[in-house]
Amino acid sequence: MRASQFLIATVKETPSDAVVTSHQLMLRAGMIRKLSSGLYNWLPMGLRVLRKVEGVVRDEMNKAGAQELLMPVVQPAELWEESGRWQQYGPELLRITDRHNNSFCLGPTHEEVITDLIRNEIKSYKQLPANFYQIQTKFRDEIRPRFGVMRSREFIMKDAYSFHKDQDSLQATYDVMHTAYTNIFSRLGLEFRPVIADTGSIGGSASHEFHVLAESGEDDIAFSDSSDFAANVEMAEALAPAGDRPTPTQAVEKVATPGQHTIEEVSVSLAVKPEQMVKTLIVLGETADEEAEAPLIALVVRGDHELNAIKAEKYPAVANPLTFASEEKIKAVLGCSVGSIGPVNLPIETLVDRSAAHLADFVCGANEDGFHLTGVNWERDATAGRVADIRNVLEGDPSPDGKGTLQIKRGIEVGHIFQLGTKYAEALNATVLNENGKDQVMLMGCYGIGVTRIVASAIEQNNDDKGIIWPDSMAPFQIAIVPLNMQKSEAVAEQSNKLYDELTALGYEVLLDDRNERPGVKFNDMELMGIPHRIVIGDRGLKEQQLEYKGRKDADNQDIAIDDIIDFVQKTVAQ
Amino acid sequence: MRASQFLIATVKETPSDAVVTSHQLMLRAGMIRKLSSGLYNWLPMGLRVLRKVEGVVRDEMNKAGAQELLMPVVQPAELWEESGRWQQYGPELLRITDRHNNSFCLGPTHEEVITDLIRNEIKSYKQLPANFYQIQTKFRDEIRPRFGVMRSREFIMKDAYSFHKDQDSLQATYDVMHTAYTNIFSRLGLEFRPVIADTGSIGGSASHEFHVLAESGEDDIAFSDSSDFAANVEMAEALAPAGDRPTPTQAVEKVATPGQHTIEEVSVSLAVKPEQMVKTLIVLGETADEEAEAPLIALVVRGDHELNAIKAEKYPAVANPLTFASEEKIKAVLGCSVGSIGPVNLPIETLVDRSAAHLADFVCGANEDGFHLTGVNWERDATAGRVADIRNVLEGDPSPDGKGTLQIKRGIEVGHIFQLGTKYAEALNATVLNENGKDQVMLMGCYGIGVTRIVASAIEQNNDDKGIIWPDSMAPFQIAIVPLNMQKSEAVAEQSNKLYDELTALGYEVLLDDRNERPGVKFNDMELMGIPHRIVIGDRGLKEQQLEYKGRKDADNQDIAIDDIIDFVQKTVAQ
Repeated sequence: MRASQFLIATVKETPSDAVVTSHQLMLRAGMIRKLSSGLYNWLPMGLRVLRKVEGVVRDEMNKAGAQELLMPVVQPAELWEESGRWQQYGPELLRITDRHNNSFCLGPTHEEVITDLIRNEIKSYKQLPANFYQIQTKFRDEIRPRFGVMRSREFIMKDAYSFHKDQDSLQATYDVMHTAYTNIFSRLGLEFRPVIADTGSIGGSASHEFHVLAESGEDDIAFSDSSDFAANVEMAEALAPAGDRPTPTQAVEKVATPGQHTIEEVSVSLAVKPEQMVKTLIVLGETADEEAEAPLIALVVRGDHELNAIKAEKYPAVANPLTFASEEKIKAVLGCSVGSIGPVNLPIETLVDRSAAHLADFVCGANEDGFHLTGVNWERDATAGRVADIRNVLEGDPSPDGKGTLQIKRGIEVGHIFQLGTKYAEALNATVLNENGKDQVMLMGCYGIGVTRIVASAIEQNNDDKGIIWPDSMAPFQIAIVPLNMQKSEAVAEQSNKLYDELTALGYEVLLDDRNERPGVKFNDMELMGIPHRIVIGDRGLKEQQLEYKGRKDADNQDIAIDDIIDFVQKTVAQ
Repeated sequence: MRASQFLIATVKETPSDAVVTSHQLMLRAGMIRKLSSGLYNWLPMGLRVLRKVEGVVRDEMNKAGAQELLMPVVQPAELWEESGRWQQYGPELLRITDRHNNSFCLGPTHEEVITDLIRNEIKSYKQLPANFYQIQTKFRDEIRPRFGVMRSREFIMKDAYSFHKDQDSLQATYDVMHTAYTNIFSRLGLEFRPVIADTGSIGGSASHEFHVLAESGEDDIAFSDSSDFAANVEMAEALAPAGDRPTPTQAVEKVATPGQHTIEEVSVSLAVKPEQMVKTLIVLGETADEEAEAPLIALVVRGDHELNAIKAEKYPAVANPLTFASEEKIKAVLGCSVGSIGPVNLPIETLVDRSAAHLADFVCGANEDGFHLTGVNWERDATAGRVADIRNVLEGDPSPDGKGTLQIKRGIEVGHIFQLGTKYAEALNATVLNENGKDQVMLMGCYGIGVTRIVASAIEQNNDDKGIIWPDSMAPFQIAIVPLNMQKSEAVAEQSNKLYDELTALGYEVLLDDRNERPGVKFNDMELMGIPHRIVIGDRGLKEQQLEYKGRKDADNQDIAIDDIIDFVQKTVAQ
């Protein structure tokens, strides 16, 4: 492509409304333009990248045996009423009415449509398993669209849906998709982690999220430094500390801690590290009788640890969702304020975190305002009650798979695979005849990839102060040819056109910067747009029969003899 | 692709709600399924064809120098208010409201969005011309969606928009697009005509529609049997008959025609052919003063001709839109009823069609109920007034370009190119700095192709009683391998798999029908789905070292030696 025939829409200033790096660079590199809140035009430069991502996704999905189809953006309300989601789905589902006053929505996802389609097309277990995908425009009416295409309202997803006669078959396709996703993100050159995800609210049996690691991510990912283990911080198990609990060495002592309510205040005042203290949080318990007042439950974690609500909610005695008791209620039942509670002689049920339960000679509240206890020991002074994992993991914790220690980084979710089980098939009565000639509800899996979001997350991970650094597989062009003074030097023009024609004929995607611009402008643009390989052609070099090569990540130029350039490119540039 | 791994969703019965052939065959061949009125799922078989069409369109648009981008489906109301179309566009524009109560529409077209984008990105005449296209989902809330994907509500269009500093540049790109469209439809193997179209309501300066010729088309196309000329019937010029008007030979005679009002009745009664008669239609004239009563104007055409409203409206004296005078008004002014009017002594202005003006000794109404005149001649008996082309052309008329005679066939509009001029650029104030450093409104062209509609129209043109006959360039698979008794014969299975692997490795798209179905079912399916080339592998042939080949259009099979099959395919199947 000749730059003079292509919309190079680079911008020098960083747009003020763009907060994250990828949003800033996509605007500055002329990849996207905002049409309206959460709606973006993809300019030619951006679309080339988007198509690269789509191509890799499509290729790996096909290799994994999935069949591509295409479902409408606009979906009839009836199907969503059948699944129950017309009522359940919040205002992110954009509901619309046509000229005949019938209700539709703009699809944020296609479970209902595919289940309806397949219940009509697949009648026998012999046609299973089957896995269908599409790459299609979705709409989600985000209350606060942000970060450019990272969280936009209209976006492109690859969504796949598989159908099965039993759990073994679902698990097998799920594993195939896990591998396909791993291949996709690897081919795209991204640093990512497949992460064990929470299946709580949807109630499926297994789920993994695929996260690109990047500072601007909205999720915290915990992963082992020496194994494949990775999980959302909320999902990662915190193991019990190794070894036996130390033997008590101190006696209990009641110390005055006037006006000190937080771990930090008490830690400073008593010169005790937070990891030698426990904090006691009071939440509501579950009640069998809705009319009855909920009992209180004490959750005890180490002073330097954070309670994990999802883990705590799993215990039947604890109300779900987790609900903290009011100050008033605590005072009424326990006779002191929140910051002074401790497990010694506490008259309510306690649930103690594994790490807290491993302490000896610890500090806690005295259940009396203005006082704490030191030298406290379990069994001797306080009943540990039930011991469980109810805290968030921390960086440096042992990995739950027993291999290495945990690191924590922020991640951007770009993929999600999910075993749906019979949820949708049951609601829409999607059955097949089984081996015994009887109707049987199918099992389903669903597998999403945020195609537009991948582009942004790749930039989050690959940039420097000059701009984007595309992985080869996503680059809009592989090679930039930058002629110096092309408008005046016939030699430069001739050599540039010749090299452009040769490389193009070899199948490389080349951007020839034939614009009448100063060299500095061209260099800056090519770096901003992240073209991985750059060849500069100027009169000075031509005199020596040389061209200048620079990789986007290289610190320095290399001189390459004109006669060697094709050979050099074929060795250097992946195709 | 192995058929066992692919959704073959053929249906034996013709679905009752499908009227046109393409709709029936797309359903029967398992290409599409209806989701809701005017909304269709594209099954894997159909999507493969759709992608082929997209591929050809994209390739030719790129070759023609257009740049691909992607604009959102959802568009903000503000831009449509700026262009004035938020009010003007009828209920086909689906208007929606988001959670913040802002107004949007689902884009039926993207003139506003592209004009907004380009007015911000292109600032100088030096960046012009530029031509941008997308292949994107559109929505048009048709009051009565019909014919499957031929007239659906959600559909895929290729829409392009070009920007120019002057008319010469617009004309040049328009011509390039005309050629690109011709290339696209030729490569797709379609019989089509680029047709001069009416620009009336949009007011642009030039427009062509591209029609695929097919019985089920909704438009009548007139085209020369010996040149490139083609036009919508409404647009084709009817030439004046050759030679001078014959010399009068008869005297005027007034004959009683009681109760006879139509051309046919009078023709039978007087034994005179309709082409020797004229009919006189009374319409309202234009008035300068809106308060004044409109004058009457007589439009005279030959008895066998039809008035063309678009042509008549072009005359300033005639009211636009064309409005027929009421019976009462005619009676009041002319003293007789409509069926008895003629040009002799008619006290109002007349506009006479060229063919009617060429008659001698003709029959017309006597301006007296129950009477007609015979032997009437212009000048001697009646004033011809203004002579003009105001009729529809008929099959057999001379072509207006002077080459050959006109044929008339029905056509399906699959493409439309249009010189918009400054219409949108002016409304949205899209200007560039010109050579003199002054702001100048850009000129625009727009160029649409109905991608989904092409698939249906190709079927309308290419089918037989067995099903679809795909042109090679659109076929979902090029070659079907049909093994007979594959489940039991190891030799058949081995040869089938071997040939499948070999042809696939050579880059052919092959469907191996490895389903456990009877041969008849397989043959019927492959023919219904329109696979252009079929190779049958059975034990009987294998004994003779032979395979059986049949082209989809062939009447008979050919036996091909196994050793020759690759060679044969490479000679026979286009790639």
